[in-house]
Amino acid sequence: MKLGRIAVATPDGEQIRLVAARPEEGRVVDLARAYALTLQRKAADPDRARAIALTMLPGSLSAGIGGGDAFLDAAHAALAAADDASISIDEVSWRAAVDSPVIRDGLTFEQHIQNFHRIVAKAQPSRSIYQRPGYFKGTTARSLGHDEVLSYPDFTEALDWELEIGYVVGKSGTDLTPEQAPDHLFGITIFNDFSARDVQGVEMPIGMGPQKSKDFAYGIGPWVVTMDEIESIEGLKGQVRVNGEVLSDTKVEDFVYTPAELLAYVSISDRLQPGDIIGSGTMGFGAGVEIGRFLQPGDVIELELEGVGTLRTPISTERQKAPWWPEPRTYPHEGWQA
Amino acid sequence: MKLGRIAVATPDGEQIRLVAARPEEGRVVDLARAYALTLQRKAADPDRARAIALTMLPGSLSAGIGGGDAFLDAAHAALAAADDASISIDEVSWRAAVDSPVIRDGLTFEQHIQNFHRIVAKAQPSRSIYQRPGYFKGTTARSLGHDEVLSYPDFTEALDWELEIGYVVGKSGTDLTPEQAPDHLFGITIFNDFSARDVQGVEMPIGMGPQKSKDFAYGIGPWVVTMDEIESIEGLKGQVRVNGEVLSDTKVEDFVYTPAELLAYVSISDRLQPGDIIGSGTMGFGAGVEIGRFLQPGDVIELELEGVGTLRTPISTERQKAPWWPEPRTYPHEGWQA
Repeated sequence: MKLGRIAVATPDGEQIRLVAARPEEGRVVDLARAYALTLQRKAADPDRARAIALTMLPGSLSAGIGGGDAFLDAAHAALAAADDASISIDEVSWRAAVDSPVIRDGLTFEQHIQNFHRIVAKAQPSRSIYQRPGYFKGTTARSLGHDEVLSYPDFTEALDWELEIGYVVGKSGTDLTPEQAPDHLFGITIFNDFSARDVQGVEMPIGMGPQKSKDFAYGIGPWVVTMDEIESIEGLKGQVRVNGEVLSDTKVEDFVYTPAELLAYVSISDRLQPGDIIGSGTMGFGAGVEIGRFLQPGDVIELELEGVGTLRTPISTERQKAPWWPEPRTYPHEGWQA
Repeated sequence: MKLGRIAVATPDGEQIRLVAARPEEGRVVDLARAYALTLQRKAADPDRARAIALTMLPGSLSAGIGGGDAFLDAAHAALAAADDASISIDEVSWRAAVDSPVIRDGLTFEQHIQNFHRIVAKAQPSRSIYQRPGYFKGTTARSLGHDEVLSYPDFTEALDWELEIGYVVGKSGTDLTPEQAPDHLFGITIFNDFSARDVQGVEMPIGMGPQKSKDFAYGIGPWVVTMDEIESIEGLKGQVRVNGEVLSDTKVEDFVYTPAELLAYVSISDRLQPGDIIGSGTMGFGAGVEIGRFLQPGDVIELELEGVGTLRTPISTERQKAPWWPEPRTYPHEGWQA
């Protein structure tokens, strides 16, 4: 199943609805609406049917996933009544496919590690990268769905993209092994880890991971594909297009750490939560900096991943300028002696 | 007001309830219960009173704070009927004072920066630390309330604490100035940024911020004190005690960046969310590594902050061992040439 989230107008203002996408049929199915109709056909009162349906198939995909098997059972039952709850796929306003409790992003593809260190870090990759599958965490407040406009931040001259697989967690888990981890994987999506490359260079020496170099936007979508539709993550082809021009063809290969190892590692002394997203790290040649290209105002970036679809992000034509930026302090450690 | 969260048993299992703490009276007030009674005295039906009260004053403090002025209005109304909804403060099981959408942690005190770089990093502090108020992000899945036991992770021999102020966000905001930021600050709490110092040394070279060195536990509590009770954050005294022994006396001074600047900076191209916690960074001599002391199994650590109270964390007597740990890969970049 392909599960996504769309925004609709209601008398109470914008509401987010969970849908099953059927791109090959050119439509999406409003799952709560379809499930309510299913329940009504089985003697439910309309008001109760609506209440039950919205509880089982809520606009929050992470809350839905938290329902466990009952969630997918309800979604499948809903699809059996889908014809009268369909919307044309061209008419919907997508939101981030999943509202993740925590956004994490790894670094697991050897080709990207090599490219990044030759071009950006201009240094030998750290030995630590080969000792454990590291990752950073991102803000949950700036996730973009398919076709949502990215507001170009004024503080960068090097706005970049990163084509990644987004691993979406299906159920809670702590201290998992790689053998147990796949059972905690609900599905995959496309994760665009937008990056301000010039800002990254200033932030990395602080030693706390990214702040403004990453947290202005994460693209998540267009939908989450459940694992029963994915024969193998390894080998999936990816493509990057800007304004329709193909800039990279790549595929999932050359794992330093596998998805199962990454999920298991995240779970150690921490806890996977339903709906958490964990980025795979950038696929080889999946970032602009690897091929000498950045995004300009007005560009449209498309990331395609086989088995999932295409996540498109238009870049704003205007730059977003914050009214304030911190003043540098006088550096108090000239002539530092340890 | 001092707002905290406690766990109570119900026929449906453990439920988290929002309370107003009155430590000077030795009691806490169950706010939803008190508010329901208030509503009943004003002609509400008991079932509707309970439903309204739980919606206005939910177990999720971040959801509650999201209610804006109506939330604190309801809490104040509830306290007027508090006598019949009191619980002895010695009988409650605390949970993390706030369930934050995002946990961020800064680095804003000069004395700690100096100590950390002399002792841990053994290097000159980065100039970037004085160019912007950096911060990392932490998992939201491992927050500990007052008196909750920290499970000592087996992967560290250097379990440390950090005494910090936790700034709790009151309302959403993007691109704020330091002048606007205080209006988005709901209150403060004590934030214990537990750290595995030996793991930190392996993770920092990856360049993505902390993973296992931090994400095993964040102490948040005992409660959140609203800003009307805090005359000035600057100057508040702090104390660290282990097993009752005073190890550090410190105070809030020597900001590299002020709380208002830190909040404003976080908001740039990102979005503050109600209930977000932002750690101040460690107060001078607020970490064990600064004074040559780490935590041992069975220890009890107490962090006290003037105007807030004491956040106590017992350390487990047994160590928690994960059943799996990633194997190091062969390092593929010997003899790297850029």
